[in-house]
Amino acid sequence: MKLIFLGTGAAVPTLKRNVTSVVLRFEDTGRYWLFDCGEGTQHQLKKASFRLSKLEKVFISHFHGDHVFGLPGMLSTRGLEGIKERVDIYGPKGIKSFIEENRKIVNFHLTYELGINNFPKKGMGVVYEDNKFIVRSALLNHSVSAYGFSVKRKPRYRFLMEKARKCGVPEGPLFGELKEGKSIKLKDGRRLNGRDFVEKVDDGKKLVYCSDTAYCENSVELAKNADVLIHEATFSGKEQELADKSLHSSVGDACRVATEAGVSRLILTHFSPRYDTKIRDGTVYTMENMADEAKALFPETLMAKDFMEYEIK
Amino acid sequence: MKLIFLGTGAAVPTLKRNVTSVVLRFEDTGRYWLFDCGEGTQHQLKKASFRLSKLEKVFISHFHGDHVFGLPGMLSTRGLEGIKERVDIYGPKGIKSFIEENRKIVNFHLTYELGINNFPKKGMGVVYEDNKFIVRSALLNHSVSAYGFSVKRKPRYRFLMEKARKCGVPEGPLFGELKEGKSIKLKDGRRLNGRDFVEKVDDGKKLVYCSDTAYCENSVELAKNADVLIHEATFSGKEQELADKSLHSSVGDACRVATEAGVSRLILTHFSPRYDTKIRDGTVYTMENMADEAKALFPETLMAKDFMEYEIK
Repeated sequence: MKLIFLGTGAAVPTLKRNVTSVVLRFEDTGRYWLFDCGEGTQHQLKKASFRLSKLEKVFISHFHGDHVFGLPGMLSTRGLEGIKERVDIYGPKGIKSFIEENRKIVNFHLTYELGINNFPKKGMGVVYEDNKFIVRSALLNHSVSAYGFSVKRKPRYRFLMEKARKCGVPEGPLFGELKEGKSIKLKDGRRLNGRDFVEKVDDGKKLVYCSDTAYCENSVELAKNADVLIHEATFSGKEQELADKSLHSSVGDACRVATEAGVSRLILTHFSPRYDTKIRDGTVYTMENMADEAKALFPETLMAKDFMEYEIK
Repeated sequence: MKLIFLGTGAAVPTLKRNVTSVVLRFEDTGRYWLFDCGEGTQHQLKKASFRLSKLEKVFISHFHGDHVFGLPGMLSTRGLEGIKERVDIYGPKGIKSFIEENRKIVNFHLTYELGINNFPKKGMGVVYEDNKFIVRSALLNHSVSAYGFSVKRKPRYRFLMEKARKCGVPEGPLFGELKEGKSIKLKDGRRLNGRDFVEKVDDGKKLVYCSDTAYCENSVELAKNADVLIHEATFSGKEQELADKSLHSSVGDACRVATEAGVSRLILTHFSPRYDTKIRDGTVYTMENMADEAKALFPETLMAKDFMEYEIK
């Protein structure tokens, strides 16, 4: 799996950073999911050579414009391009109205199935599950209801084909059933259990995305033992008061979540535009200072940039 | 006045062209108006160094996403930047719902007065007027109700200060009244008419914007004797059938409007993405062919590009 950061700025686009969106791409299929969809996400996807036909799911964290205003345009472009592949949107209560009210006035044509899914009640629980992944949401602590997501890739197994052959399993449907972990009965009456014919390749991986939020226990719980935590860090520690007031995180808040949850890698994103403009009202802000602060608190930290890629092996 | 083309592509953004938006900037004040506001217009404004505080008016031609999906984000950013200056939106019926429904869900904060104005009934008539400009709209011929705009800058006059002095007009309030074209009465009983104390500098200018539309008589009427006509040309003449079917214009349709209306300068925009991608389904499309076609039909034609500037003297 690979992460590609399409927008790493907070609130408004700058010349260096677009507003929020992160891609999770599956390298076996080339398909991908999006976490949030700020204005201009479809432009960023095009710059990064992603096809909209490969988009499977969009998870919207909350209803602030910098996380959602790119959705109507992207859905509309999928229709204009004649794409047939279904897409599913997962979002807080209101996601259906948001899409439908936009479509009432700007009646864009859909050439594909559009699934619109609310989060589980109270925002906690399983949002999506298939045989490879389970996605959970948790309510964070922001000025509007905002949700974090954990994506757990389930452990992967390799089918022991030679072992099956040696046990006299004939190639064909029985092979397939065994591969899926089912029990089978051979002609000679022997019963074989699929579990004995697979070997674990890995224990799975866990990715967590928390944006926007102040420090909160739900983030820590959601991020427990994650391989990668993507966490917002709108402000540096010097602007802690601003972070608290706006229910955003400082670098310190995000590092605290990473430490308490015992994550392996922290990626900070959603930086206030002030850290790109350097000087504002006489104060000097730099992204370098933000990075130093993060490294001191949680050494395994990366600062996201637009189009940065990170592979989750 | 200066035109700056922010987005010159049709339907979907490409790597070369954003979706539609055109700036009309007034050089005496630095303030500007927008015609249409496709997704990413605020990004383009930033790239072209425009401040959102100087934005005065937005005219929306019709409710297709490539002309309007940039509006919520741009209005939201104005609030996040703490801008105090009023902005007025003019659009077809539904413009109020479009903004309000988006705000119901994504409740962005307004720090400024937001005027939302419907076009006159049946879409024909005066949309806006002040002492310098008059803006009119006309119903075009598209798959949804779409409107063209004419912007007439009224004739400009220079105050003949020396003449007023020689006639014994005392400096002060009477000077001001005369300057505004009013009649005044001097102490000695003489009456002076303001009209005799001004000299015409120019006859005004007329700019017309028609997008999206097939060829129609209303466009010709609206564009009559315009100094500059901005007209959509989604397709080349080879794709006339496609143009007719989708109620868009070919280069030929746009040139016909320019010829029949007797305009001085035609600027074509809103080109289908196929002319940037060159090859699609085995057919070669190029912008150069489009330009040659236009020049042959109406020599005073320019092909718009993103960030192209054109001064209306």
